[in-house]
Amino acid sequence: MMKWTCSILIALFGTFWITGSGGAQGQPTMSDATQACLSCHGFFHPGIKSDWERSRHAKVTPAEALAKEKLKRRISNEKVPEGLLKTVVGCAECHTLNPEKHPDTFEHNGYKVHVVVTPFDCSTCHLVEVEQYGKSLMAYAHVNLNNNALYRDLMTSVNGVQSFENMKIALRPSDPETNADSCFYCHGTEIKVAGQWTKDTEFGKMEFPVLSGWPNQGSGRINPDGSKGGCTACHPRHQFSVEVARKPYTCSECHKGPDVPAYRVYEVSKHGNIYSSVGKDWNFDAVPWTIGKDPTAPTCATCHISLIVNWESGNVIERTHQMSDRLAWRLLGLIYAHAHPKSPDTTVIRNKAGLPLPTELTGEQVSEYLIDTEEQARRDATMQKVCQSCHAEGWVKGQFARLENTIKSSNEMTLTATKILLTAWEKRAAKGLSQKDSSFNEAIEKKWVEQWFFYATSTRLASAMAGADYGVFAHGRWDMGKNVQDMLDWLKFKLQGKLEKANGKEK
Amino acid sequence: MMKWTCSILIALFGTFWITGSGGAQGQPTMSDATQACLSCHGFFHPGIKSDWERSRHAKVTPAEALAKEKLKRRISNEKVPEGLLKTVVGCAECHTLNPEKHPDTFEHNGYKVHVVVTPFDCSTCHLVEVEQYGKSLMAYAHVNLNNNALYRDLMTSVNGVQSFENMKIALRPSDPETNADSCFYCHGTEIKVAGQWTKDTEFGKMEFPVLSGWPNQGSGRINPDGSKGGCTACHPRHQFSVEVARKPYTCSECHKGPDVPAYRVYEVSKHGNIYSSVGKDWNFDAVPWTIGKDPTAPTCATCHISLIVNWESGNVIERTHQMSDRLAWRLLGLIYAHAHPKSPDTTVIRNKAGLPLPTELTGEQVSEYLIDTEEQARRDATMQKVCQSCHAEGWVKGQFARLENTIKSSNEMTLTATKILLTAWEKRAAKGLSQKDSSFNEAIEKKWVEQWFFYATSTRLASAMAGADYGVFAHGRWDMGKNVQDMLDWLKFKLQGKLEKANGKEK
Amino acid sequence: MMKWTCSILIALFGTFWITGSGGAQGQPTMSDATQACLSCHGFFHPGIKSDWERSRHAKVTPAEALAKEKLKRRISNEKVPEGLLKTVVGCAECHTLNPEKHPDTFEHNGYKVHVVVTPFDCSTCHLVEVEQYGKSLMAYAHVNLNNNALYRDLMTSVNGVQSFENMKIALRPSDPETNADSCFYCHGTEIKVAGQWTKDTEFGKMEFPVLSGWPNQGSGRINPDGSKGGCTACHPRHQFSVEVARKPYTCSECHKGPDVPAYRVYEVSKHGNIYSSVGKDWNFDAVPWTIGKDPTAPTCATCHISLIVNWESGNVIERTHQMSDRLAWRLLGLIYAHAHPKSPDTTVIRNKAGLPLPTELTGEQVSEYLIDTEEQARRDATMQKVCQSCHAEGWVKGQFARLENTIKSSNEMTLTATKILLTAWEKRAAKGLSQKDSSFNEAIEKKWVEQWFFYATSTRLASAMAGADYGVFAHGRWDMGKNVQDMLDWLKFKLQGKLEKANGKEK
Repeated sequence: MMKWTCSILIALFGTFWITGSGGAQGQPTMSDATQACLSCHGFFHPGIKSDWERSRHAKVTPAEALAKEKLKRRISNEKVPEGLLKTVVGCAECHTLNPEKHPDTFEHNGYKVHVVVTPFDCSTCHLVEVEQYGKSLMAYAHVNLNNNALYRDLMTSVNGVQSFENMKIALRPSDPETNADSCFYCHGTEIKVAGQWTKDTEFGKMEFPVLSGWPNQGSGRINPDGSKGGCTACHPRHQFSVEVARKPYTCSECHKGPDVPAYRVYEVSKHGNIYSSVGKDWNFDAVPWTIGKDPTAPTCATCHISLIVNWESGNVIERTHQMSDRLAWRLLGLIYAHAHPKSPDTTVIRNKAGLPLPTELTGEQVSEYLIDTEEQARRDATMQKVCQSCHAEGWVKGQFARLENTIKSSNEMTLTATKILLTAWEKRAAKGLSQKDSSFNEAIEKKWVEQWFFYATSTRLASAMAGADYGVFAHGRWDMGKNVQDMLDWLKFKLQGKLEKANGKEK
Repeated sequence: MMKWTCSILIALFGTFWITGSGGAQGQPTMSDATQACLSCHGFFHPGIKSDWERSRHAKVTPAEALAKEKLKRRISNEKVPEGLLKTVVGCAECHTLNPEKHPDTFEHNGYKVHVVVTPFDCSTCHLVEVEQYGKSLMAYAHVNLNNNALYRDLMTSVNGVQSFENMKIALRPSDPETNADSCFYCHGTEIKVAGQWTKDTEFGKMEFPVLSGWPNQGSGRINPDGSKGGCTACHPRHQFSVEVARKPYTCSECHKGPDVPAYRVYEVSKHGNIYSSVGKDWNFDAVPWTIGKDPTAPTCATCHISLIVNWESGNVIERTHQMSDRLAWRLLGLIYAHAHPKSPDTTVIRNKAGLPLPTELTGEQVSEYLIDTEEQARRDATMQKVCQSCHAEGWVKGQFARLENTIKSSNEMTLTATKILLTAWEKRAAKGLSQKDSSFNEAIEKKWVEQWFFYATSTRLASAMAGADYGVFAHGRWDMGKNVQDMLDWLKFKLQGKLEKANGKEK
Repeated sequence: MMKWTCSILIALFGTFWITGSGGAQGQPTMSDATQACLSCHGFFHPGIKSDWERSRHAKVTPAEALAKEKLKRRISNEKVPEGLLKTVVGCAECHTLNPEKHPDTFEHNGYKVHVVVTPFDCSTCHLVEVEQYGKSLMAYAHVNLNNNALYRDLMTSVNGVQSFENMKIALRPSDPETNADSCFYCHGTEIKVAGQWTKDTEFGKMEFPVLSGWPNQGSGRINPDGSKGGCTACHPRHQFSVEVARKPYTCSECHKGPDVPAYRVYEVSKHGNIYSSVGKDWNFDAVPWTIGKDPTAPTCATCHISLIVNWESGNVIERTHQMSDRLAWRLLGLIYAHAHPKSPDTTVIRNKAGLPLPTELTGEQVSEYLIDTEEQARRDATMQKVCQSCHAEGWVKGQFARLENTIKSSNEMTLTATKILLTAWEKRAAKGLSQKDSSFNEAIEKKWVEQWFFYATSTRLASAMAGADYGVFAHGRWDMGKNVQDMLDWLKFKLQGKLEKANGKEK
């Protein structure tokens, strides 16, 4: 019965859209293929259809989008293929694009459909953004974690299952599903075709690909076509709303936890307060975004990504999807804050000790892999241009000087924790690098990780975005100071045990 | 003077409402009793009156509510007593209903008023919802905590006051006010009439009941009339807004802490992001709730409770107030995740060891008290029907498989912690079940509690609702792994002390 | 070129505003000086200009503001200087006011401009609010922290940098920039003119003051003119929106961390739920604020600060900027909860032991410096008047009784922790007051701080505002109980070490 209902719907919908279309009335023109998709999938997945109908994709053709003046344009490839120019961007336009490139393509009611729409697909219209994003650390979030022996060991120590027998703990490495549910949720999974499954439907048996690592919308996802990233990480399907991407909740999906509390810091900052209080009155849809006219305080996107216009002078801060383009320092995720790496692929980095780290264990930067002070100054200048839209230069200089001071002092506090750890290794209270053991599996090592991964990061983000709590008592300086004491006490208690055993033996 | 003001107000308001009423103009008809209430209480408690005036209760009579077509109907008792049908639901309709049932009824200006409106009162119109809720674990939240010796011991160890003398700690059990301020805030207090108090007013002396356990709006509250629950837990007085109940902040009142971080997980999920970003444009008042048309992403209520309609196919997911009706697994609050209990009254459960627990201490399910795999499959199917409104089947299958994997691995990590605890008991490093001592009062026991009560729960909720942070570094796998190390170190340090004492003695 | 552009803009804008002004059309009248400011600064800082244009300052002259009836009036000095009465409150009105009082005044294009607008400036129109605020603890937030030897020692232990050498930790006291980035972010910095800097501009060289402690908008900021506080702490520049000040996000800037989780508690309270769910429909701009008509549940400002009107009785709860005016108890920030201090300057307080604390180390209040029970009752009565706008008296009495019980039990739990600490000092397991060492620098001392500074505070705030999580598992009673066990274990492990060393030596 469903079959007939669908067929009738196909007919009806086709008619509706066809009569409803035509350039004359400015109605959207939908491809036949998309109409066919919608005729059934609107029935089975009304949420997808409805979401898409609210999107700009459903209302504007690439040709119309390209006709806008440059600053207002939302697509960046001036050579959109002829066949895609005159219809709106519907199901088929994305899910049947370049079928030969997609190993997850399957035959479906006469169409070659792929499940996973990738940056490569999106670049058909959004070329510049995809190219920029491809140069960003976020595109390499999977690769940099998975292909770095040290980080991978940290991941294993987090996601592996520990078991206990005879006063000893053994670690079973994590399975792929756990990694996908954990680190790779944000970093991105590797999606592969793992087989086929067959479904009995009212239209007969249908075959679909089984995808390993699916679902996922992590920022550095490795797609079946080999491309990196999932645009849906920040532009959720199927509304692809610029409003959503510009609101801080999007960033908070991955940047809220103790490892990257950026959203939390923003929330308690003056900027966050103003956004939460009166952001409801701002225009989140305007392209370009005009300071003062559209938002009166920044969200994450304002400072880090968006195309910003000064409504009086017309001055422009260019849009960037290379996320660290306005950032001189890498404040998070690594043992010490340091200048941003030159290449988004950080797996190539080796410090003097041969470790895949951008600093030595004692904090010195491995400069050859990192941007130089000139590039740092350039990035600071771009960011400060944003700040100065609302702040006098003296204010901005004071703010940036304070951050540099905090980078220095938080790095010092990490060095202190590191020295205690190195002493523990040296005195055989724990086994680490020198014993060719994991650096992340024992209690003191885990405390050490929290020193930099949680507390130093939080302190620096609090300084950078002026959200004080997170630099003091909420995983800030208080926690750095307390943790150092706890590490030292742990070491002393441990050494007591050794001494005591010695006492026992000596007798 | 207040007396006369009130009398005049009674007269004026009465007139206003009477002239303003009458079926003809569709104006609300208020009972005389409610008019009398409002004439004074609007004066003394303007917030209550105003709140109520914004409510549907103030605008629609039960007769009008019953006249709607079934899917749109907001009341479920087709046999509302004749006397209540034709007036709006005002103060008197609820607070003077069934006075003989309510021990807290008192004489007040000629009316028999009771303070605590109960599910029994609400069932006069909302019969089906009250019946469903009565079968839910939430209705038993007080009973299941208070009447289970083990859980009660945990409550005492949390709320009791510890004192320190001679290097020893003594525990004074918690007083009822502390329990009411703590666990029972959400679980519900037991409300009893504890006496009378007299107030001098401008109308002369007035007597009111003194209620112990009041105020409270916990989900499993034991009311003076013996009924369980407080509908105001989720439908706050006196607006009783469906919008409030459907927004996630309502659930967050009790499901945000480290023991049940459901709201926090939702917040960083894609669903939560979309809600926070564009939920302002959704219709939260529509009954039924149409996927895609009203909300474009789910809130808590969408997946767990609400009547959901597919706008294209008309397919319906039934409303349920038996909160776990769409849930196969109980992910939180107990040592191991397990199939949901058959009966909401879990005090009857006994495992093989005779403990009132749905699993053994080593994790095996006590199956006779738990729903079977067939019922689990039925519940999963209902939930997946919600998911598939917006997601293809492959996506949904992947998501559910991942959750099952996480249930398994998080249970394993709890088993590891439990084995360390059992070893501590065995080696007399701590006193527990085997020594007939509390399982919750010593440091290693408290660490063990955090393993399952905080970290394993958080990890599972993060998996279930796809909010990664809470499964990794925010009380997730990181914390499970670190806690196991800390437990073992605690045990070793403790045993060192024993050895050392022995060394000292041996000499 | 910029120079000419600016000059032209000055001309154009001047004309626009002048033609656009004039009392007749009710258009704002801007001073010449402000027009001159805007002609360039609108160009360089469009966000500032735009923000200001949305403000009431840009639309209403002091004369118009004073003409309103008393309850609706937003300014409180009836003697605004004649020269300021007839123009709107623009850049020049604040930034060139009383130049002789401001050491940060500099010559700028013919005007004497100062950077830091202070409460002294604001009092020109908002006299009563500034006077009230001057009597509040918040105005003394810097002084009370910085000039109290004990608190200053705590600050140093938090912000100082620890280094590790030879199994010992040394503490380098914190530098001013770190303090500004940390504690003083909220408490307020001391802002001083530290020099001059010169900037090459298109208008030639320009000189500006270098300010130390800048930027800052802490509540107890010491301004260059000697006044205390920054009104922008709660009324952010340059919109100065009453909506922002009334929304809880403003308070959350400083009252969200583990030391003062007031906002978090509010968030999970019934009040917070209602605000988050339907606050979007409330009027946040009305003065006075009418209960039920404007908000239907309170925000922070409603209970603690705002002028509240009962729409039926007309009864009024007066506005206060003396923040603790409705608070009987000081629940946070100190070792024990206690009656509020009489004077906002708490540096004068000495307990019997000579410590600058409002209680003894064992909890007894130092009554001579604290408000008496009569004053406490007066404050409770004011607050309860707010509560009773929406709650019956029995409800309110129950709520307040529960808080008093929680104050008592949380103080007891702090006493237990303090006794363990005192024992540790006594047994030389740690060095503290008796050894003239810091009370905050060792592990057990830091645990002790968390007992009162985090957990007891959180528990009390959860009780006061009915947000249960924060009184149970989210830094509440659970944490108080666990911490006491951890402190005792730490002490035992430490003493084991001493014993063991003794054992070793004795042999």
